[in-house]
Amino acid sequence: MSQHAYEQQTPSVRAAELAQIVQGELVGNPDVVLNTLAPIEAGGQGALTFIRSQPFAKFWAESSCDAALVTRGVEISNHDPEHKALIFVDDADIAVVRILEMIDPGVATPGDGVHPSATIDPGASVDPSARIGPGCVIMRGASVGAGSVLMANVFIGGGSRIGGECLLHPGVVIGDRCVLGDRCRVFANTVIGADGFGYLPGNESRGAIKVPQIGSVEIGDDVEIGACSTIDRAKFGVTRIGNRTKIDNQVHIGHNCVIGNDVLLCGRTTLGGSATIGDRTLVGGAVVLNDQASVGKDVRIAGGSIVLDSIEDNQTVLGVPAMPSRIALANAAAQRSLAQFCRKVEKSLKKLDPDFKPPST
Amino acid sequence: MSQHAYEQQTPSVRAAELAQIVQGELVGNPDVVLNTLAPIEAGGQGALTFIRSQPFAKFWAESSCDAALVTRGVEISNHDPEHKALIFVDDADIAVVRILEMIDPGVATPGDGVHPSATIDPGASVDPSARIGPGCVIMRGASVGAGSVLMANVFIGGGSRIGGECLLHPGVVIGDRCVLGDRCRVFANTVIGADGFGYLPGNESRGAIKVPQIGSVEIGDDVEIGACSTIDRAKFGVTRIGNRTKIDNQVHIGHNCVIGNDVLLCGRTTLGGSATIGDRTLVGGAVVLNDQASVGKDVRIAGGSIVLDSIEDNQTVLGVPAMPSRIALANAAAQRSLAQFCRKVEKSLKKLDPDFKPPST
Amino acid sequence: MSQHAYEQQTPSVRAAELAQIVQGELVGNPDVVLNTLAPIEAGGQGALTFIRSQPFAKFWAESSCDAALVTRGVEISNHDPEHKALIFVDDADIAVVRILEMIDPGVATPGDGVHPSATIDPGASVDPSARIGPGCVIMRGASVGAGSVLMANVFIGGGSRIGGECLLHPGVVIGDRCVLGDRCRVFANTVIGADGFGYLPGNESRGAIKVPQIGSVEIGDDVEIGACSTIDRAKFGVTRIGNRTKIDNQVHIGHNCVIGNDVLLCGRTTLGGSATIGDRTLVGGAVVLNDQASVGKDVRIAGGSIVLDSIEDNQTVLGVPAMPSRIALANAAAQRSLAQFCRKVEKSLKKLDPDFKPPST
Repeated sequence: MSQHAYEQQTPSVRAAELAQIVQGELVGNPDVVLNTLAPIEAGGQGALTFIRSQPFAKFWAESSCDAALVTRGVEISNHDPEHKALIFVDDADIAVVRILEMIDPGVATPGDGVHPSATIDPGASVDPSARIGPGCVIMRGASVGAGSVLMANVFIGGGSRIGGECLLHPGVVIGDRCVLGDRCRVFANTVIGADGFGYLPGNESRGAIKVPQIGSVEIGDDVEIGACSTIDRAKFGVTRIGNRTKIDNQVHIGHNCVIGNDVLLCGRTTLGGSATIGDRTLVGGAVVLNDQASVGKDVRIAGGSIVLDSIEDNQTVLGVPAMPSRIALANAAAQRSLAQFCRKVEKSLKKLDPDFKPPST
Repeated sequence: MSQHAYEQQTPSVRAAELAQIVQGELVGNPDVVLNTLAPIEAGGQGALTFIRSQPFAKFWAESSCDAALVTRGVEISNHDPEHKALIFVDDADIAVVRILEMIDPGVATPGDGVHPSATIDPGASVDPSARIGPGCVIMRGASVGAGSVLMANVFIGGGSRIGGECLLHPGVVIGDRCVLGDRCRVFANTVIGADGFGYLPGNESRGAIKVPQIGSVEIGDDVEIGACSTIDRAKFGVTRIGNRTKIDNQVHIGHNCVIGNDVLLCGRTTLGGSATIGDRTLVGGAVVLNDQASVGKDVRIAGGSIVLDSIEDNQTVLGVPAMPSRIALANAAAQRSLAQFCRKVEKSLKKLDPDFKPPST
Repeated sequence: MSQHAYEQQTPSVRAAELAQIVQGELVGNPDVVLNTLAPIEAGGQGALTFIRSQPFAKFWAESSCDAALVTRGVEISNHDPEHKALIFVDDADIAVVRILEMIDPGVATPGDGVHPSATIDPGASVDPSARIGPGCVIMRGASVGAGSVLMANVFIGGGSRIGGECLLHPGVVIGDRCVLGDRCRVFANTVIGADGFGYLPGNESRGAIKVPQIGSVEIGDDVEIGACSTIDRAKFGVTRIGNRTKIDNQVHIGHNCVIGNDVLLCGRTTLGGSATIGDRTLVGGAVVLNDQASVGKDVRIAGGSIVLDSIEDNQTVLGVPAMPSRIALANAAAQRSLAQFCRKVEKSLKKLDPDFKPPST
């Protein structure tokens, strides 16, 4: 392990070879040697960058990168084919993903089998091909599927079922009777299956009464969940996360939420109890969904928005409360000069209408 | 453990038996067999639902549930007493809680005594009736009371005292010299007693200076704290949480906060340093209290609000900054059509007043 | 360990001795005995408080504290020199820090060497002077520097390097190939080096495609990071935190962010991917920086603000979106009476202009 293991190095590769690997069309010097990936404005010798779409093409002339993956159809001027290489592909973003996958060092995982410091209840069922790292605890009736990896200090509660080929990072806690599908990745210290926050409010004669949260969490296949996120169990029934949904760090999902397939939830988004989100919806960072809020399919919610009630399919919304983006942007523009607007209106109306009194006077 | 342990099943019970259990009055078919709980709009054969108050009564006619717990005084029309059962009780919500308590499978906890993989300092004191699960660490001078359970990988810092009948879920970390009362529940990966965020800001000649945080956290009896929450120790003195207060997931409570009894703090609420909250106050989700903010007793703060300074007893507030809800709702309504309002006012004033110039022109 | 170890007690000290310790000038009774620290409005017998600046001086007359550290130049009236003591120093805040440092009991840490329940890969390198507590896991190629302490259940990923004299609290997880400098403190359950949230959004024919996050996190010297915070690894390259920067609890820092030296980030602040912050900038609590937002040096951002794009050096900003505070405060004032303003303007314009129609009509 070198002193600089944290600097990403692609294995050295000639532009011509790279064009073959990504099945692209080379324009320029085939012998440029590439050994690192970089943003177009950074880079340097040996750096490969990418040009996703036309607006980025103008940066190529001044870029110090030696080569670029370019989405076919983007027009590049000022290319120096003698010293540099362009590789045209169907989709530069996907080509970058393929290269990253190739050079990805992967996660350093524990060795085969069950680490001696792990604690597996005799009534639990762990597939022989699963790897259970140091300090993991698997309770009675729980099961872990083939090829899954529990890194270290992971806790699997009673009766929970972890599918095959899952990767649970250190400190993940799965409560009792939860279900994860196949190929899920859960990052460190995330908690799935804590009790939902359900109380009958107190009154003069007694404190709040806890509503037992006896439901569970059911997560589909190919779901990825970031670090320090929380997904609460249902009061009764199931809190459900659909297939291929991706959840960022520090997201909070309350009890009885139902989230569809292929949803993206960015960092620190909060879903109150029983909120629902339809398939393929994209939710920005630090968004709040009120209890029972209902968001349709193919919706886009901008970061920082608060959703109070319901959003129809296919809408793009933003703001507090979230509203169609056209209206929200117009209102935001008006708000930015609100004080000035009020002063001017007041001045004018005081002149025109002797009865007009602004709020502050 | 069945394949579908995560579906909540009440043991099968006849409506007449259920009426006895909850001491209710049966109207309808006593022989309806119930084996699950469901919301009124979901349900199906064998499902029991509940009708808390009059507005929900209208859903009964179309509900596919077979029985409902109904708060006495609610009038139900379109009841089919031949096929369905209504059970009238003093409070349908409380009756549901009693049924959930009855069928709650409870948390799968570690076995009796101290697990061999736990590390207990010889200078710590653990009651013989406490259960200390795998990987737990209890430092010098700490104590754990009778009947308390530390699930797994729980850390109790030096000199901290955990009361009796507490349940600390996996990964909970309690720093040095903190106190938890009796019957507290703390969910996974919550951290109590990290240092408060106290620095003398840097200047041209030196970086920020850390203010040692030598105080502690003191938590009352019957407190429940969600997953991945953080309660910081005081700079000096105590960060205090009152009895029966309930705190949701990912709540952050800064150093030297003082929170009263019977308070509810919903998910992702943030309390700056030295903020205070009086008894029985309800705080919605994703609320922010500024440093030193002071909130009275019996206050209600709507989700997403920011409290800048102080809120008197018995207020209901919302907004940014939080203000009485009547004003906040009126302002919010005005903001939703602000751009349109500005355009119309501008158009009108341009006509009336040749000197009027809106901000953007 | 006493029953009340959580109450901070300074060792008893006479005012005259204290004046010597902080090199201050005593005015008043040298024999007052002090044994605790307290805010000026709390306190009581034996309590020492502090008066940082002139506005706090007026509280001295009614304070029940017996002595105060006072910043030189602050004028105190109503001092009772027979019964009380004032100690004038260059900077009362710094004098308090010095006293707190003196009486700080420190963190109760594990014993010398490697605890038998820790798991150290043979290919890892741990300095003999480091202390590795129970349940810690150090993966292949990782290193831990001289004098560093890993409290308990800490995970260090493959190839990561922890500098000297660091303190990692229980449950901290450092992913693969990350770097921490010297003298860093990381509080419990914080996660450094989870994958950045990078996906090519799905479309009708396929789900989202994960962009491998093969970069790393590099943290400077003397950095402090609160509990349950998350700092994601870069897509490629490095997510970077400068020297002496302090990060509060539940802060989320996305992939490829670059944060300068001497920055303060208060609780629950969220940085989207590739956001940058310059040296010495102060960021309040619950702030959101949009993806790619760029904040200069010596900026101050008020709590609750949302930064959409860029903030120049030396600005003080607040609001949603963040704007110069003078404008933001004026707009906020206008918003607080917006509904009332609109009603008055409407009333006036309806009278003046028969064509005027407010939005709601």
